[in-house]
Amino acid sequence: MRMIDLIERKKRGGALSEKEIRYFIKGFTSGEIPDYQAAALLMAICFMGMTDQEIAWMTDAMACSGDRVDLSSIPGIKVDKHSTGGIGDKTTLILAPLVAACGVPVAKMSGRGLGYTGGTVDKLEAIPGFCTEMDQEAFLETVKKIGVCVVGQSGNLAPADKKLYALRDVTATVDSIPLIAASVMSKKIAAGADAIVLDVKCGSGAFMKTAQDASHLAREMVAIGRACGRRMAAVITNMDVPLGHCIGNGLEVAEAIAVLKGEGPDDLREVCLALASQMLSLARKGSPEDCRTMAKKALDSGAALEKFRQMCIAQKGDHTILERPQSLYEKAAVYELAAPQDGWIRQMDAEACGRASMLLGAGRETKDSAIDPAAGIVLCRKTGEAVRKGEVLARLYTNHPDRLEQARRILLESYAFAAEKPDDIPLIYDVILEK
Amino acid sequence: MRMIDLIERKKRGGALSEKEIRYFIKGFTSGEIPDYQAAALLMAICFMGMTDQEIAWMTDAMACSGDRVDLSSIPGIKVDKHSTGGIGDKTTLILAPLVAACGVPVAKMSGRGLGYTGGTVDKLEAIPGFCTEMDQEAFLETVKKIGVCVVGQSGNLAPADKKLYALRDVTATVDSIPLIAASVMSKKIAAGADAIVLDVKCGSGAFMKTAQDASHLAREMVAIGRACGRRMAAVITNMDVPLGHCIGNGLEVAEAIAVLKGEGPDDLREVCLALASQMLSLARKGSPEDCRTMAKKALDSGAALEKFRQMCIAQKGDHTILERPQSLYEKAAVYELAAPQDGWIRQMDAEACGRASMLLGAGRETKDSAIDPAAGIVLCRKTGEAVRKGEVLARLYTNHPDRLEQARRILLESYAFAAEKPDDIPLIYDVILEK
Repeated sequence: MRMIDLIERKKRGGALSEKEIRYFIKGFTSGEIPDYQAAALLMAICFMGMTDQEIAWMTDAMACSGDRVDLSSIPGIKVDKHSTGGIGDKTTLILAPLVAACGVPVAKMSGRGLGYTGGTVDKLEAIPGFCTEMDQEAFLETVKKIGVCVVGQSGNLAPADKKLYALRDVTATVDSIPLIAASVMSKKIAAGADAIVLDVKCGSGAFMKTAQDASHLAREMVAIGRACGRRMAAVITNMDVPLGHCIGNGLEVAEAIAVLKGEGPDDLREVCLALASQMLSLARKGSPEDCRTMAKKALDSGAALEKFRQMCIAQKGDHTILERPQSLYEKAAVYELAAPQDGWIRQMDAEACGRASMLLGAGRETKDSAIDPAAGIVLCRKTGEAVRKGEVLARLYTNHPDRLEQARRILLESYAFAAEKPDDIPLIYDVILEK
Repeated sequence: MRMIDLIERKKRGGALSEKEIRYFIKGFTSGEIPDYQAAALLMAICFMGMTDQEIAWMTDAMACSGDRVDLSSIPGIKVDKHSTGGIGDKTTLILAPLVAACGVPVAKMSGRGLGYTGGTVDKLEAIPGFCTEMDQEAFLETVKKIGVCVVGQSGNLAPADKKLYALRDVTATVDSIPLIAASVMSKKIAAGADAIVLDVKCGSGAFMKTAQDASHLAREMVAIGRACGRRMAAVITNMDVPLGHCIGNGLEVAEAIAVLKGEGPDDLREVCLALASQMLSLARKGSPEDCRTMAKKALDSGAALEKFRQMCIAQKGDHTILERPQSLYEKAAVYELAAPQDGWIRQMDAEACGRASMLLGAGRETKDSAIDPAAGIVLCRKTGEAVRKGEVLARLYTNHPDRLEQARRILLESYAFAAEKPDDIPLIYDVILEK
């Protein structure tokens, strides 16, 4: 088998065989296939795509390239959730204890932030003492004991994906839907859950800018999961506007706690209920409607909050933050951003909000930057709301006053105002269930 | 400037600026831009193409990447010729002395064979003692003295092209017309001639399989040459059938000598006259028609042959081969291939003829293979001719009797027979002149 023949075939729009795809993934991971040939193939895939069957083989080959988590010792249907990433997305902090409180085990591996904002692991680490590094045995024991555990991704999960992603990142081949789908799903398959719910974000703050692309990606990932024997569902949610009011690690934990207390912003609560109902339903807890009612009860009764407290304790985090969530961000100075005019907020650039938040210290500028857990932004007004000139649009939390002006400018520019109330935009575009 | 932005733009179908193209060629040649990013850009170019302006910049950047031959000390308009390569193409052996005999200096650098058959340098080296390695000064002096000299390409002519071609070769990005055009023209521009005639081959034995692709490539190269200040013409010639009867280095020299004696096969003589008339016309020797008459006279009077003799003497080759051309191939054993049936030869696969010839020892299987100058094939019958079963179709010359059966089979399979006389195929498709 020669790599050049694979490149040539894909370039002409042909499909690769299972043997060829495994040869490519294996050879690339081991270093036998050089980066330049892999780069040529990736670019050809960007133009010519891949069939569902090719994507499923590629996903499986990548999932098999490293460790595979074995969750079989945990009784019941284990459910995982994956978000394609957005600004202010703290749903995992809510969903993990919420679903566990409803009796479905959640053994979750999460990542750190890649883009402008922190990842779930960064958010959890805003809780003093919270430990996201755990050996396999302790991880499984915790899930068996309290039904939930959220840790950082193990070093050797789908190393083929890690290497391939690094190459895509420097060869402008990141935005191919087949490659994104295979990348996400390879890690999810290796992480061992029986059922997976995907939260595919769509809009200015997401990788997928249109509902059409988001739907395409969601369907591709659901198909891959099915081909690999997983129960699957995907929810396509809005990311034209940051989710909830808070951006920044400590602030987002505080907002998650509010939702777990039955409070919090409507959009965040609503997205969590939509995702939780699919997660519970895949775990055979009933119809999505019944499961939604079940999840709502768990939030309003305090059962989900109690599960979160157990999780904090099991993972050595300071659970007193549940009573004093403001301690998570009170170490930063607060500055206000005033509305420059009367009017309705017609739209916001969610990505710009993320960029401003990163500048304040809430995200990593480079891979090795440290994150300030107290830094971030609270959006007091979002798209669809009316403001008067001088009213507070947002509060900025930072320990870097020197970066304040730039962050304020970026944030202000992210708003567009109108004289009339804008049309409502849907929060949830679509739910895609396996066929 | 970041290479990834260049890849991204080209991937989306945008054009690169002059600065960006020079940055790419310079960075890639120096090794600062890694192969994998270059490979991704090359593949994106295969899909999205390049504008004429982009191609001209890229050609110039590659021509500037190494030495540039300075022919200014030679009086007159120096004319070069380039063939895109085909089977049995020995036109340079004829054209260089022919054009020189008409008073136009030819200071030519030629390559070795890349594909199935030898290059001009390999052919000249079939002449005992013939020296194709010469320092710059001796090269120029020879042209000044006798009007012609043909040497091997200098080591550092367009090194960017050399490196880029090596990468294209292993990443399935060879067949992009903009990349082919820039590659060819960068070497021609660096080689210093004032005027360039291109022989763009078209058909089963050529890289361009259709007249449309050949015309596209020809126009692209003429436009590049013009943009770089060269006088340009291109002739699109047939390569569905090998040119002349002989394939193999010694055999081809012998056939070239026959044409220089006013004999030789019609198709070869005709292509040489078409190319010579353009070369002479670009050198302001008159209209293409007048120049054709001039070239014809030089062949029939023996003036071109005499120039070839001078060239042999100047380059230390054994000029007695002009009287005994059979000495060039008589060291090989001869085998015949008989026609398997009565009929008309409907078509031949020229590339297969090349492959068979390589097997017999006339070409390089790998970069380091030695060439047997006596090996090759004489095609006694070609497309459009009638044969009777058992008549000799071809004679095979080789010192590898063990490879004879395979070569014979390949050659036989390259013929297709018909009961009716096939339509004539044009020998010269088109002549493209600068606007």
